[in-house]
Amino acid sequence: MMSDGSAAGVGALHPDRLFPADPRTRAIARALYAEVRALPILSPHGHTDPRWFAANEPFTDPASLLLTPDHYITRMLYSQGVALEALGVRALDGDGDGEPPDPLAIWRTFAAHYFLFRGTPTRLWLDWVLAEVFGVETPLTLANAERTFECICAHLAEPAYRPRALFERFGIEVLATTESPLDTLEHHAAIRTSGWPGRVISAYRPDPLVDPETPGFLANLARFGELTHQDTLTWRGYLEAHRVRRAFFAQQGATSTDHGHPTARTADLGTCESEALFERVLRSTQAGTLRGDDAEAFRAQMLTEMARMSLEDGMVMQVHPGAWRDHNAPLHARFGANIGGDIPTATDYVGALRPLLNRFGNERALTLIVFTLDESSYSRELAPLAGHYPALKLGPAWWFHDSPEGLMRFREQTTETAGFYNTVGFNDDTRAFFSIPARHDAARRIDCAFLARLVAEHRLPESEAAEVARDLAYRLPKQAYRL
Amino acid sequence: MMSDGSAAGVGALHPDRLFPADPRTRAIARALYAEVRALPILSPHGHTDPRWFAANEPFTDPASLLLTPDHYITRMLYSQGVALEALGVRALDGDGDGEPPDPLAIWRTFAAHYFLFRGTPTRLWLDWVLAEVFGVETPLTLANAERTFECICAHLAEPAYRPRALFERFGIEVLATTESPLDTLEHHAAIRTSGWPGRVISAYRPDPLVDPETPGFLANLARFGELTHQDTLTWRGYLEAHRVRRAFFAQQGATSTDHGHPTARTADLGTCESEALFERVLRSTQAGTLRGDDAEAFRAQMLTEMARMSLEDGMVMQVHPGAWRDHNAPLHARFGANIGGDIPTATDYVGALRPLLNRFGNERALTLIVFTLDESSYSRELAPLAGHYPALKLGPAWWFHDSPEGLMRFREQTTETAGFYNTVGFNDDTRAFFSIPARHDAARRIDCAFLARLVAEHRLPESEAAEVARDLAYRLPKQAYRL
Amino acid sequence: MMSDGSAAGVGALHPDRLFPADPRTRAIARALYAEVRALPILSPHGHTDPRWFAANEPFTDPASLLLTPDHYITRMLYSQGVALEALGVRALDGDGDGEPPDPLAIWRTFAAHYFLFRGTPTRLWLDWVLAEVFGVETPLTLANAERTFECICAHLAEPAYRPRALFERFGIEVLATTESPLDTLEHHAAIRTSGWPGRVISAYRPDPLVDPETPGFLANLARFGELTHQDTLTWRGYLEAHRVRRAFFAQQGATSTDHGHPTARTADLGTCESEALFERVLRSTQAGTLRGDDAEAFRAQMLTEMARMSLEDGMVMQVHPGAWRDHNAPLHARFGANIGGDIPTATDYVGALRPLLNRFGNERALTLIVFTLDESSYSRELAPLAGHYPALKLGPAWWFHDSPEGLMRFREQTTETAGFYNTVGFNDDTRAFFSIPARHDAARRIDCAFLARLVAEHRLPESEAAEVARDLAYRLPKQAYRL
Repeated sequence: MMSDGSAAGVGALHPDRLFPADPRTRAIARALYAEVRALPILSPHGHTDPRWFAANEPFTDPASLLLTPDHYITRMLYSQGVALEALGVRALDGDGDGEPPDPLAIWRTFAAHYFLFRGTPTRLWLDWVLAEVFGVETPLTLANAERTFECICAHLAEPAYRPRALFERFGIEVLATTESPLDTLEHHAAIRTSGWPGRVISAYRPDPLVDPETPGFLANLARFGELTHQDTLTWRGYLEAHRVRRAFFAQQGATSTDHGHPTARTADLGTCESEALFERVLRSTQAGTLRGDDAEAFRAQMLTEMARMSLEDGMVMQVHPGAWRDHNAPLHARFGANIGGDIPTATDYVGALRPLLNRFGNERALTLIVFTLDESSYSRELAPLAGHYPALKLGPAWWFHDSPEGLMRFREQTTETAGFYNTVGFNDDTRAFFSIPARHDAARRIDCAFLARLVAEHRLPESEAAEVARDLAYRLPKQAYRL
Repeated sequence: MMSDGSAAGVGALHPDRLFPADPRTRAIARALYAEVRALPILSPHGHTDPRWFAANEPFTDPASLLLTPDHYITRMLYSQGVALEALGVRALDGDGDGEPPDPLAIWRTFAAHYFLFRGTPTRLWLDWVLAEVFGVETPLTLANAERTFECICAHLAEPAYRPRALFERFGIEVLATTESPLDTLEHHAAIRTSGWPGRVISAYRPDPLVDPETPGFLANLARFGELTHQDTLTWRGYLEAHRVRRAFFAQQGATSTDHGHPTARTADLGTCESEALFERVLRSTQAGTLRGDDAEAFRAQMLTEMARMSLEDGMVMQVHPGAWRDHNAPLHARFGANIGGDIPTATDYVGALRPLLNRFGNERALTLIVFTLDESSYSRELAPLAGHYPALKLGPAWWFHDSPEGLMRFREQTTETAGFYNTVGFNDDTRAFFSIPARHDAARRIDCAFLARLVAEHRLPESEAAEVARDLAYRLPKQAYRL
Repeated sequence: MMSDGSAAGVGALHPDRLFPADPRTRAIARALYAEVRALPILSPHGHTDPRWFAANEPFTDPASLLLTPDHYITRMLYSQGVALEALGVRALDGDGDGEPPDPLAIWRTFAAHYFLFRGTPTRLWLDWVLAEVFGVETPLTLANAERTFECICAHLAEPAYRPRALFERFGIEVLATTESPLDTLEHHAAIRTSGWPGRVISAYRPDPLVDPETPGFLANLARFGELTHQDTLTWRGYLEAHRVRRAFFAQQGATSTDHGHPTARTADLGTCESEALFERVLRSTQAGTLRGDDAEAFRAQMLTEMARMSLEDGMVMQVHPGAWRDHNAPLHARFGANIGGDIPTATDYVGALRPLLNRFGNERALTLIVFTLDESSYSRELAPLAGHYPALKLGPAWWFHDSPEGLMRFREQTTETAGFYNTVGFNDDTRAFFSIPARHDAARRIDCAFLARLVAEHRLPESEAAEVARDLAYRLPKQAYRL
């Protein structure tokens, strides 16, 4: 990872940021952090664009790079009355909107509202990017906005700010993106054949083929059949198509699958029942009469089928349930998905995961990594489940909870029951490439802060805490994701 | 607000109370608190009696002033075996009970049980009232109970302890009470015409006319019709009556409405459906056959109607869901409401608020302030919703959670997703007039303690934290409640 | 309790363990702890084997004493791929398994995985046992495993390590075990007639006779009838049998009953309805057609019946709901219960307990102690209920939450609403006799750490905090459990 700001000028970040204020605990945290600060970054789950690393072209401007595509930013500004259009977000039917604002105007709008992010992780990430990547003044203000903008533009034109150079400068060892089974992975292939040694791999995300409520589900199935030469309108052919495509992803470097379901529900139906369900789902989708319970049952069964295939091909399985996608219907209709309108919901794991866990949870060869947006499940459900089933591991604090307080609550509420070794290190899960080191750095700092408290309270010897810190930062994700 | 005890004698409170123990963090908290300590109090939501300020008569005695009407106090003593009658609470059918205990006897009973409040906010509030308002010795003990009682009695006879004098001494800029649409607001009018400049305003609380399960609902509707000259037995006339009465409240200074529903459920029915529902509710209530789901649907639709009217008349809307009122049926039958038998329940917001939010949540002109008694919803539901919808703001930690730990959890669990600027400052929500400064002071101290940690951990520059502290104490409630 | 490690050698534990790092707060915690460190242990709820104290024979070996029966240990190792057989757990149908590993092999397996317990309470408890009871080196490593094993073996052969000697050395004043109504309590009787003054009492746990879904329910009823000379196939005789058996338990020293139901649901049916339900449950169980809702209704009604009997005979009632027992069906089929496969679930208390509370919750003569595995209910449901109903008290952080962070969250989330005095001190709830002092010591330390923060933040005078510390450690459990 990058140097810690010691050489930076006006925008220097404090070297002790995120460490507890108590001097003795802080000293321990600092020592632990020294062990992990410079370890390579493993980013086993995220949403950066592989095209960047294939083409290695310069990024265009600060607004389209750092603001417009970041739903943490657009949601906060929107909540305070800023129109999405003013941030460069285009309406789906955007013909009548006139010209979008120019990048500097967007940047100035953002600067005028930077105070809204006080106390949020977005502030920490952005300050890091401004100070560490671009060496510009922080905090961002209306007064320095134009100067900052131009400085970033100038840097972006430099070779050192092209995607591959930054990948190396950031100390990234592996970066995973997420693609649909229908994706050709051409960019990943291009990276691999380019001679550049950066390891950018994919993850198999079959939601568009597994969730019958996805718009275009039947067309997706048809395309899935073409790609795999299987009859994807039969249960057997449909499963085989997944096998074929998983093998293709694995061949291109993928080590994991990823599943973003509304709930954690799983099922363990027999073959005949599964086949009947598949056929009912197909027929009713064709007729426009798909029932919600059939869709849910199908997604549930498919998680168990994916676990079965993971036992066959060794791919690690990630489950990310509990978001109500596109809660704001009028806004979704105008702007589409991923503009900040997803909201977490209460999520059951104990009953929901039982069919899958009773089928495959005792398999040591399976790794099933479960995430949550419902923190009340940490100590009540997820830590007890992960502290028992050999297959189950806990994904880190995720999305809304990938933040200093959220990361700390994750450790405080899971460690005593699941231990550290049923967790898998940090995931940045981000589209914001420039913030990846900031996010991993924050996670390492919080883990060190938590460990430092254990040491200061004589609950763990410092030498063991140092080993844990290294394991959390590097060894556990490497092992869990089979990197 | 009042001086901070520096001049007080035996009852002096520690100037650093509620600040973190770490010396560096404490020093920051102290500096932040110095910025907000003396700011005027905005009390935009509470339950004091406007008659006090209209009549400006002396309060009678310590027990009926400080103990008998305070359900925090009666519930704790009752839980430990003290009879409500011994605290001066009269049974509804109280004829056979004999004389109530005299105020000194009640005061002594309370003193004998004061230890029960160790670690609770009631202890903090009472100690503040005893030390700061009355300058008497704390802690209260059986040994000093009589002396304390007499000292308070003597003070209450002084002009400086009349309601208006205390209102001024407490530094209150605005105090909102809560009244039914059927209330004449005569006391508010008397205050306004009295020449006294204290600003005591009402809030429009239509629950008795919106909840068909309220005892006397039909009689309330009839009275509502008389007051507004509308036919409140038609949907159209009923809605118009609300408009008329809201306008009257606004004319008397009210800037907000308040809604205390069992759940957060909202609905967005068409006019015909709403009208049919209204008529079904009327008929079934008349027949004694009202169904729970109709009552819930009607309350749900009325929240959306109230939001529609708020867009018309600019009143801020407050929703306080999630209490199971009068859980203790035998006690409720004997003593009536508000004696400590209300219990929070798990509360869904994501699904429940969606109809209203999809209808009006994108309106920047609407302010909908939502409260909760279910802390698990802070990070999971409420902060994500408030961090997205322009209309939605988060009310502060409320009722059982208006306490040092509760206020801190609110900041820790909402700030990272909603930021500070989707919250609206503090509400005391109290019937206990004397404790209002104590409650606001505690909230300011906890906010400064939280901010001090952010500063000490280098997550926010101190100058920005000072601005946030001032915003939370004064600017945000002023703006959110349109004061 | 035992000396605090000052005399110990290599295995010495730090005297300040579990205290906050801030020096001023730590000094207060230390002073408070000095008040409670040496108070006798009251263990009013646990699962040790009374036979140990009746027979007073030496324990056999470290593995069968400390590892194999401890489900905290077996679940963690199992979750990381260690076979239960390798820990000495025998399959139910274990004939084909070959010989179990010898105790030293088990010990070495455990030592090789000791790092998994970093940050968990098991680590704290084990370190305490190794250092304080056996005076051996900590942490346990593969390198010192054999030496440690032999040292423990040697100690176990000494008279000072027999059950009664340790009971005295541990400073235990009362130790409660838990038995079925069908138990003869012969070991308790043997202890009482032996002349040894150690107070080992039982608790009446009627689950096998109250839960119709228990395997062998009808046989249990038959045996219940024989023991009590009642016709337990009639509702009246069945209830009378409980009365008879409760009286027998009370005569043998029991002061409490214990109820481990899947939910907290209670009911308050009339006699005819209860009788009809009992008969339906009997008939359907005989026919193999028992319905889940009837079983749940019967358990619910029986909690209320048990409360009624508690009012008659003065036994304290404990309710422990919310565990999904034997969640891992394949593992349960092979190894039976209590091997780590129980998982907490979301648990409602407000609606569930209302029938019982509305019937008996206002009775000051009843003590109903409620536990939870769902921490989200602490501040939302349980503290408000306990802070109101005279009969209701809060049991301490339990099972998965009996840990430093869990115990602290319990105080942080219940105290402000329920106070300290609606709680009942600590329960170790353990089968692991050797860890009892470690668990009570941890609870005392955490309570002192919490109180020290209140003192350091000027929320409670130190003298009052010291009284609370003593109350929590000794007076409250003594009083609540009528010891």
